[in-house]
Amino acid sequence: MTPIDTLILARRVVPVAGPTRVLEDHAVAVRHGHIEAVLPAAEARERFEAVEVVELDDHVLLPGFINAHTHAAMNLMRGIANDMPLMPWLTEHIWPIESAFMSPGFVAEGTDLAMAEMLRSGTTCFNDMYFFPDVVAERVDAAGMRAAVGMIVIDFPTVWAANAAEYLDKGLAVRDAWRGHERITPVFAPHAPYTVSDEPLEKIRTYADEMDLRVHMHVHETAFEVNDALEKTGERPLARLDRLGLLTPNFLAVHMTQLTDDEIDHCARTGVHVLHSPESNLKLASGLCPVQRLIDAGVNVALGTDGAASNNDLDMIGEMRTAAFSGKLAGAQPDAAAVSADTALEMATLGGARALGLDEITGSIEPGKAADLCAVDLSAIETAPMFDPVAAVVYNASRERVTDTWVAGRRLLADRRLTTLDEAQLLDTAARWRDTLAGHARQPAARRSSE
Amino acid sequence: MTPIDTLILARRVVPVAGPTRVLEDHAVAVRHGHIEAVLPAAEARERFEAVEVVELDDHVLLPGFINAHTHAAMNLMRGIANDMPLMPWLTEHIWPIESAFMSPGFVAEGTDLAMAEMLRSGTTCFNDMYFFPDVVAERVDAAGMRAAVGMIVIDFPTVWAANAAEYLDKGLAVRDAWRGHERITPVFAPHAPYTVSDEPLEKIRTYADEMDLRVHMHVHETAFEVNDALEKTGERPLARLDRLGLLTPNFLAVHMTQLTDDEIDHCARTGVHVLHSPESNLKLASGLCPVQRLIDAGVNVALGTDGAASNNDLDMIGEMRTAAFSGKLAGAQPDAAAVSADTALEMATLGGARALGLDEITGSIEPGKAADLCAVDLSAIETAPMFDPVAAVVYNASRERVTDTWVAGRRLLADRRLTTLDEAQLLDTAARWRDTLAGHARQPAARRSSE
Repeated sequence: MTPIDTLILARRVVPVAGPTRVLEDHAVAVRHGHIEAVLPAAEARERFEAVEVVELDDHVLLPGFINAHTHAAMNLMRGIANDMPLMPWLTEHIWPIESAFMSPGFVAEGTDLAMAEMLRSGTTCFNDMYFFPDVVAERVDAAGMRAAVGMIVIDFPTVWAANAAEYLDKGLAVRDAWRGHERITPVFAPHAPYTVSDEPLEKIRTYADEMDLRVHMHVHETAFEVNDALEKTGERPLARLDRLGLLTPNFLAVHMTQLTDDEIDHCARTGVHVLHSPESNLKLASGLCPVQRLIDAGVNVALGTDGAASNNDLDMIGEMRTAAFSGKLAGAQPDAAAVSADTALEMATLGGARALGLDEITGSIEPGKAADLCAVDLSAIETAPMFDPVAAVVYNASRERVTDTWVAGRRLLADRRLTTLDEAQLLDTAARWRDTLAGHARQPAARRSSE
Repeated sequence: MTPIDTLILARRVVPVAGPTRVLEDHAVAVRHGHIEAVLPAAEARERFEAVEVVELDDHVLLPGFINAHTHAAMNLMRGIANDMPLMPWLTEHIWPIESAFMSPGFVAEGTDLAMAEMLRSGTTCFNDMYFFPDVVAERVDAAGMRAAVGMIVIDFPTVWAANAAEYLDKGLAVRDAWRGHERITPVFAPHAPYTVSDEPLEKIRTYADEMDLRVHMHVHETAFEVNDALEKTGERPLARLDRLGLLTPNFLAVHMTQLTDDEIDHCARTGVHVLHSPESNLKLASGLCPVQRLIDAGVNVALGTDGAASNNDLDMIGEMRTAAFSGKLAGAQPDAAAVSADTALEMATLGGARALGLDEITGSIEPGKAADLCAVDLSAIETAPMFDPVAAVVYNASRERVTDTWVAGRRLLADRRLTTLDEAQLLDTAARWRDTLAGHARQPAARRSSE
């Protein structure tokens, strides 16, 4: 008998390695945080002696979800202004609140709340873009999650930095402090073409090439962004980024709702990754990213929730569902086969790992990778009868059916209980921020006019 | 002290009567199945002596959801064939399975499973279209739910009836058997323009006018339907129904993804109701119904899940979210204010009651109406911080947070337990049907080609 740390026996395992397979009555053996083997349950019981055995009789075991685009600390502004488009939402609500309340404490408490929500819904890794990335990295380290921490750069001053040069310096200091950490990956995070000028973008390109780091940026989120740039400069934002040399396999373009056929081909040729956030795109009426066309052209597409202020949740199961639903109408012609359940699951796991350059470490259930896993209980009325576990997760399970989440072999959600974050304390924190920010919340139109 | 049956004290009550209001710390007094009063909690405690007092400290109390379009018994085929368009889905999977397995037992067991799912997610009333409506009515009566039971009519033979005339006769017999029932409303349910010929439609129009009954029909579900009719007859389906005299305030048009401006105006003029099922429309790539344009034109729009074979769930909370998300991109221009959270909630409650002609009985929390209610617990991490309870329900709560559902004052879901349906037995039934039907399930494309 080989000694291991954890043996997870599951009714079904979906490894997301190669074409989607469903392994019945299989086991995942975990040792020193890594996957030692994936094998039939009966065989596993004979071969391994585990410190902990977890039996998941009604579950499907999946790779942990990778939330490829979020602003975790914005959880404190969850749904603070709804049913309005991107630019007024940013300029009338989000930016003023951030300007008034941003602090290391805001980021610490918001990030903890977000990680609790993510772990409770099976997410093991997230790609963050926010102020005080030093604080984000500390909280990620403490909670035991995996994250790509964004070295944010934006032209205008905030309490985090006064100008683009200082953003870069402070970002690089965060990178130096955390480089080599097993679960934390520094990533450049210039906010968007309309908020970052050429000079810092050129520096980022140079550093990213030298250090082989990812560059995470909102691009072509709305038609307004593209048209505004065209009017002011005669150049589409993606063309400008190309001219600045940013379009490489290190570039992560978020949203991309406005794309010509040539731009799709160019993304494929340059190896750019697309980070798709359909719920945010729909809620802000930004448009639909042509996901299946990108995939068919050879572009890797990952899935992210965006922040809770625009979504309003960090639920990757719901995001897969919305990606599959909306993806069928996002092409040149309606296509019910576009963004299938299998495709949505791959985008939410391995696609995210590829985007972040972490696909040798996470994103699928394969020997040698980190044990980043989640289990979904499929025994309830809501998923009965169950003909296919992947379709059941994507099209009708709720995140509340996630029972367990492991990151690097550590069980951070155990039968619905968080093991590294204090739920009661987080609820108190959220209630306190609710009282602080309530005066800045947008009243729905009908209520504004009637009372 | 006035004696009543039930006093429900809730942290928040959203009556959905007039412009959306949120009443803090209010109570709903229930007597003989009806709402006696809606008043501040403190006042209610002094005024009423209740047999049962239910305290909902962390909840929002809403009108029960009205699922305005479903095929309940299709729950047995939940997700049996995914990621394919309407016509092959119907002709290669659904119709062959129905042809081989349809029976009173199928309908009884499928309807019970669907009602369990609906009650567990806050739905109190549904508008059904399926075979054996006599069985549906019996199951609805036994479970204590409210329903509009469809007198289905379709040209081709099934085990329920051999031809359109027999469908009509048997439907009318169901109507005679159940007329006057407090919770059951018979409704004509001709399947679709492409499956029902003029003669039965003319009879239905005559009967519906005479008896003042609703007519529930799929209309303009896909571009294919409209183009096919145009090619074969030179007439759009809606124009044909208008010529046959069907477009009146008794007509409930489901789907309506293909509408010209003139057709929208004509719907408003004729008083037709539109039943919107966005998840089914997206999953089958049928298209998007222009909901906000219909509402702005004065058309009443209700919300339904469609059947679990095409959705794949009967979750009205999820359906509200998808309606709000997709509604913002369904107009001539993207509009983030379209189908707001408040609008989605009204569509899912009062809009459904209006469509079914039941708005004097249900659809809002007002004295005199039936006590059809649901409670959603908003105390979890997933809805914290909470700035607006309507946005929290529509944009980030899961149906698992529904704790209680009352129909006509009877508590059919009590703190997550069903009181009239046996959950364990339903799961056994579903597992049995799963084994029976599994050979007919569609294998996802990647799995077909790889193994």
